[in-house]
Amino acid sequence: MINVGIVGGTGYTGVELLRLLVQHPKVRIKAITSRGEAGMSVAELFTNLRGHIDLKFSDPADAKLSQCDVVFFATPNGIAMQQAEILLEAGVKVIDLAADFRIKDVAEWERWYGMQHACPHLVAEAVYGLPEINRDEVKNARLIANPGCYPTAVQLGFLPLIEAGIVDTDHLIADVKSGVSGAGRKAEVHTLHAEASDNFKAYGVPGHRHLPEIKQGLSRVAQHPVGLTFVPHLVPMIRGIHATLYAKITNQIDLQALYEKRYQDEAFVDVLPAGKHPETRSVRGSNLCRIAVHQPQNGDTAVILSVTDNLVKGAAGQAIQNMNILFGLSETMGIQQVPLLP
Amino acid sequence: MINVGIVGGTGYTGVELLRLLVQHPKVRIKAITSRGEAGMSVAELFTNLRGHIDLKFSDPADAKLSQCDVVFFATPNGIAMQQAEILLEAGVKVIDLAADFRIKDVAEWERWYGMQHACPHLVAEAVYGLPEINRDEVKNARLIANPGCYPTAVQLGFLPLIEAGIVDTDHLIADVKSGVSGAGRKAEVHTLHAEASDNFKAYGVPGHRHLPEIKQGLSRVAQHPVGLTFVPHLVPMIRGIHATLYAKITNQIDLQALYEKRYQDEAFVDVLPAGKHPETRSVRGSNLCRIAVHQPQNGDTAVILSVTDNLVKGAAGQAIQNMNILFGLSETMGIQQVPLLP
Amino acid sequence: MINVGIVGGTGYTGVELLRLLVQHPKVRIKAITSRGEAGMSVAELFTNLRGHIDLKFSDPADAKLSQCDVVFFATPNGIAMQQAEILLEAGVKVIDLAADFRIKDVAEWERWYGMQHACPHLVAEAVYGLPEINRDEVKNARLIANPGCYPTAVQLGFLPLIEAGIVDTDHLIADVKSGVSGAGRKAEVHTLHAEASDNFKAYGVPGHRHLPEIKQGLSRVAQHPVGLTFVPHLVPMIRGIHATLYAKITNQIDLQALYEKRYQDEAFVDVLPAGKHPETRSVRGSNLCRIAVHQPQNGDTAVILSVTDNLVKGAAGQAIQNMNILFGLSETMGIQQVPLLP
Amino acid sequence: MINVGIVGGTGYTGVELLRLLVQHPKVRIKAITSRGEAGMSVAELFTNLRGHIDLKFSDPADAKLSQCDVVFFATPNGIAMQQAEILLEAGVKVIDLAADFRIKDVAEWERWYGMQHACPHLVAEAVYGLPEINRDEVKNARLIANPGCYPTAVQLGFLPLIEAGIVDTDHLIADVKSGVSGAGRKAEVHTLHAEASDNFKAYGVPGHRHLPEIKQGLSRVAQHPVGLTFVPHLVPMIRGIHATLYAKITNQIDLQALYEKRYQDEAFVDVLPAGKHPETRSVRGSNLCRIAVHQPQNGDTAVILSVTDNLVKGAAGQAIQNMNILFGLSETMGIQQVPLLP
Repeated sequence: MINVGIVGGTGYTGVELLRLLVQHPKVRIKAITSRGEAGMSVAELFTNLRGHIDLKFSDPADAKLSQCDVVFFATPNGIAMQQAEILLEAGVKVIDLAADFRIKDVAEWERWYGMQHACPHLVAEAVYGLPEINRDEVKNARLIANPGCYPTAVQLGFLPLIEAGIVDTDHLIADVKSGVSGAGRKAEVHTLHAEASDNFKAYGVPGHRHLPEIKQGLSRVAQHPVGLTFVPHLVPMIRGIHATLYAKITNQIDLQALYEKRYQDEAFVDVLPAGKHPETRSVRGSNLCRIAVHQPQNGDTAVILSVTDNLVKGAAGQAIQNMNILFGLSETMGIQQVPLLP
Repeated sequence: MINVGIVGGTGYTGVELLRLLVQHPKVRIKAITSRGEAGMSVAELFTNLRGHIDLKFSDPADAKLSQCDVVFFATPNGIAMQQAEILLEAGVKVIDLAADFRIKDVAEWERWYGMQHACPHLVAEAVYGLPEINRDEVKNARLIANPGCYPTAVQLGFLPLIEAGIVDTDHLIADVKSGVSGAGRKAEVHTLHAEASDNFKAYGVPGHRHLPEIKQGLSRVAQHPVGLTFVPHLVPMIRGIHATLYAKITNQIDLQALYEKRYQDEAFVDVLPAGKHPETRSVRGSNLCRIAVHQPQNGDTAVILSVTDNLVKGAAGQAIQNMNILFGLSETMGIQQVPLLP
Repeated sequence: MINVGIVGGTGYTGVELLRLLVQHPKVRIKAITSRGEAGMSVAELFTNLRGHIDLKFSDPADAKLSQCDVVFFATPNGIAMQQAEILLEAGVKVIDLAADFRIKDVAEWERWYGMQHACPHLVAEAVYGLPEINRDEVKNARLIANPGCYPTAVQLGFLPLIEAGIVDTDHLIADVKSGVSGAGRKAEVHTLHAEASDNFKAYGVPGHRHLPEIKQGLSRVAQHPVGLTFVPHLVPMIRGIHATLYAKITNQIDLQALYEKRYQDEAFVDVLPAGKHPETRSVRGSNLCRIAVHQPQNGDTAVILSVTDNLVKGAAGQAIQNMNILFGLSETMGIQQVPLLP
Repeated sequence: MINVGIVGGTGYTGVELLRLLVQHPKVRIKAITSRGEAGMSVAELFTNLRGHIDLKFSDPADAKLSQCDVVFFATPNGIAMQQAEILLEAGVKVIDLAADFRIKDVAEWERWYGMQHACPHLVAEAVYGLPEINRDEVKNARLIANPGCYPTAVQLGFLPLIEAGIVDTDHLIADVKSGVSGAGRKAEVHTLHAEASDNFKAYGVPGHRHLPEIKQGLSRVAQHPVGLTFVPHLVPMIRGIHATLYAKITNQIDLQALYEKRYQDEAFVDVLPAGKHPETRSVRGSNLCRIAVHQPQNGDTAVILSVTDNLVKGAAGQAIQNMNILFGLSETMGIQQVPLLP
């Protein structure tokens, strides 16, 4: 059994980690910490877990995380970078669901995240945990930077086009839409039901933190810097990301075949038959990314549709997928839930 | 392995049966029928099932249901009563998720359902499949009448009060609220998103088909006819039933203790701590019924709050719970999914 | 023209007052105050008002409210009671949309609202502004206590039954459901879209502040204390209240005729034809209360369905209705918007 | 007073026309027809209109539409083209809210709409009723082709860029999102609340009927054929369209100034301050189009955000705007409702 600790378990990635881990056959949850809720029963805060978990939130100081095999950080940005090193030195694997170790260029990270990095020397070592690109590196990592929700859906969508070198990588467009759980379990006016329901809007058009993360990932694949316009939108739904991706085709090939071949061995990427449109509920609660490939009117614009559950493949599920790889388990263990529809 | 057939698999109880059965360790799905969609891949209609099931819908005529161990009817009312007998004679167990065998008084049934009963002699034999009341009868049944969604939440909520004989059973009130999946996957104007969203209404106040079913169940427990006012409402959510139940207390006892004791051995009924309010999402996707017990201002009115997922404990999950009992399996096998929250 | 001031205009009752008042032919809005947003353009905060209003929020200290003819308090509880007296002394009419002057029993008020009343001697003078009961008193008032949202829907629903003296007033039941805007424009976790959407729950069953307000109103009509069980619920919609009211009939009369007669001259109360069910969207954005009257199975339980828009007839619209009465205008002036459907 | 007739009033554009026209000071509604609902009270079908309209639906044969001054067709595609001519000959102005007269190339229209055009000679005469482009032609028209909902939001968004000749018009991209009322008040499975709620998807990526309409409009402005990729999506909200538009800038100028200047005299187009993001609810129930202009990271991609209410500026409101122009009224008469927020 793998002994697991979770730091910062009172947000949505925390409860989602718990939902999945309590059903994982090789996991024992040792501790889940919360500064604010220490002493409270986890199942009192998250009523869906009543009957599935007996733990209480523990104070970070008391949690004995160094006795775990792996620790997940489901914390706000800027926490993992302060605590990872001591855990790594104790031989604990660390998977950070926040952004602390995602951007290799520390100055760039500091600009977008508005703080000084506490641990720049670990940034180089950290492995960006998108298994469909980086599986081999993940296997041998000590420290995993779990990708952001938008970056997962966008990179998986663009990947085959860029690997194949058949699109104009200077003018990629990612028009992405997210359910409101992506904003986290924080009390804020703009995500109140009375504000966000029956409404639709873009946000962060001048610049969003996931832009440099996606550009880094795609540039690495392209082996040269890519140009990307990234426009996120807020959808009145709880879970789900829908990325609508546009690229100008410079070399005509069979896109459907390209995508099917690229992902034929991937358990968590499902390429739909030609002509289909994925919907976010088709992956609700699951670790899947479903992708459809279009080339409207046989023109020179590729339109790729990519959907994920932002809390699963976009966060907690992918973190467990990385854990499975790290510990030599079957990559799909414990994360094969059937999506909930309707 | 239990060989399972499903008749009428294109509605919400059908897809929910499939979601649960494909994960059930002792089940092999042999056939799923649909007159309208015969030949279509199940996973093409229900995209959440892509990768989890390879079956196509088959024509009822070709389905060889008599070779199954158990057949679920996920059909509209009036179908199972035409087909159950021949299956029973072939030694197949039958679980009807519709209403054909729920009401023992056939004339009453015909009045509420507006059709002649095709098979009245089986009505007497059929066992009403609410295991928390009827477990022993279920064990030995050939034919199970799976309870309606409202009746499950209401009966489990009232049950301890009525068994204890401490309330006025002439004036019970059930104010119940359901998500729109309860209306089924039928194209109708009043359940369109643009009609049902951002809206709330009661319906069926003069009379609803679940009224006689609930009265029959509670009267059986009370051992005399009960009086019930039953008011259903439509909630702009997908899944979930919330029953708010009112009863005048005639004999003051500790209600919290009464409920905790009554349900202490029930895997699927969760009595919340005193003072709590269950929410429907706390059971989303699960077979649980969560109940809270209140006595406002220590007056003589008991207020019981009871929530279920109408498609699981209110339909498909309870049907599988009944199947587990019928076949001597652990009652919880395959239906212990953690509710999806948020 | 009536010169109007608004204190505390950054909540939902504030923006709703503005939406209605900018269209009112006899109103000039002189000032709208906000401690937190002083200096900000109103239309920047509430983007629906762009092009309809040029005001900025002003600091309460600078607002010259005493030069207004009437001041609306759209503030949290406990503010109006500190500022009303000085305005009244300056000859300004005051309409408080919060609860400060609603409960005549000051000790009772202090118990439910958890603070000491700053101005108990004005409580006796204040007129409870439910025009369908109190129209004549409103005409001559200086200080109006605008009713709560639940109390408006519940009292209008029960009123004819109680005036007629034909129900058991010891065991009234009000099962009420509200859209989330009723919780206000405050950043709180439980009303986030990801928490409140696709979900349903009761709250405040042990006791809710609107209970004493409703009991006071109904007791005054009944001329003796009434007994009421009041259970509020949160509906995943933005606006709307649906009250489902239960009363045991002690004297059988034609309820439909009773209601139609009682409200025949009321512009804002619409009694639906027999057998209908009102829906909240049928009053969305309007000052109407629509009511349907049922007596299921001709039994001895009356079921009354009463719907309002909590921000209009339950708050801002009713406040303007009271203003119209106070100033001798047509009672319906400026508040005859057609409900928005779908 | 203008005598108005409405053909086909049982859909969402019908009820929205009624909501606006009953408040219009210069309109008398003479008849509203429905084959299916003839004889039914309009206010029984559309409960928001109770108290605001006394008409019944009349059979088209009895409606005496030729005595009206103007007739609106709120019908499915293919109806107006059969009835317009006889009305025009009787001197009645015709405003078609469907697509029959929008596309000048009749063969192209027949290809996209899958039927033969019944009245091709009127297509040439018909004026495309987008007043912000065509105001002078509208003034003198007999027959108005009211624009589609997507085409309104997209054309108003792109217009200044194309008029200025500063973008690559071969590769325009319109990623558009619509509330489900855009699909109409038809009973269909995919727009049920249980299907469309808490979900997001693209549809019609291979081709959508609004594509040729938008291309025609933009090509006319550009004075040469434009290339457009048009991807519509379904949003779980009732009303609202959000167009996110992308164009490659070929000539750098101040985009914010360009838009503000272009629309400075337009009552129904509101250009937001730089850096803002419009949300659909900011125009809910109103005839406004609100637009924001972005140029992320000062790159060569313009991102334009354009929102409308699909039933108002995208349908009924624009139709009345056209009527106002046709009859020499103030263009804004009767359609200055303040958007409903929250």
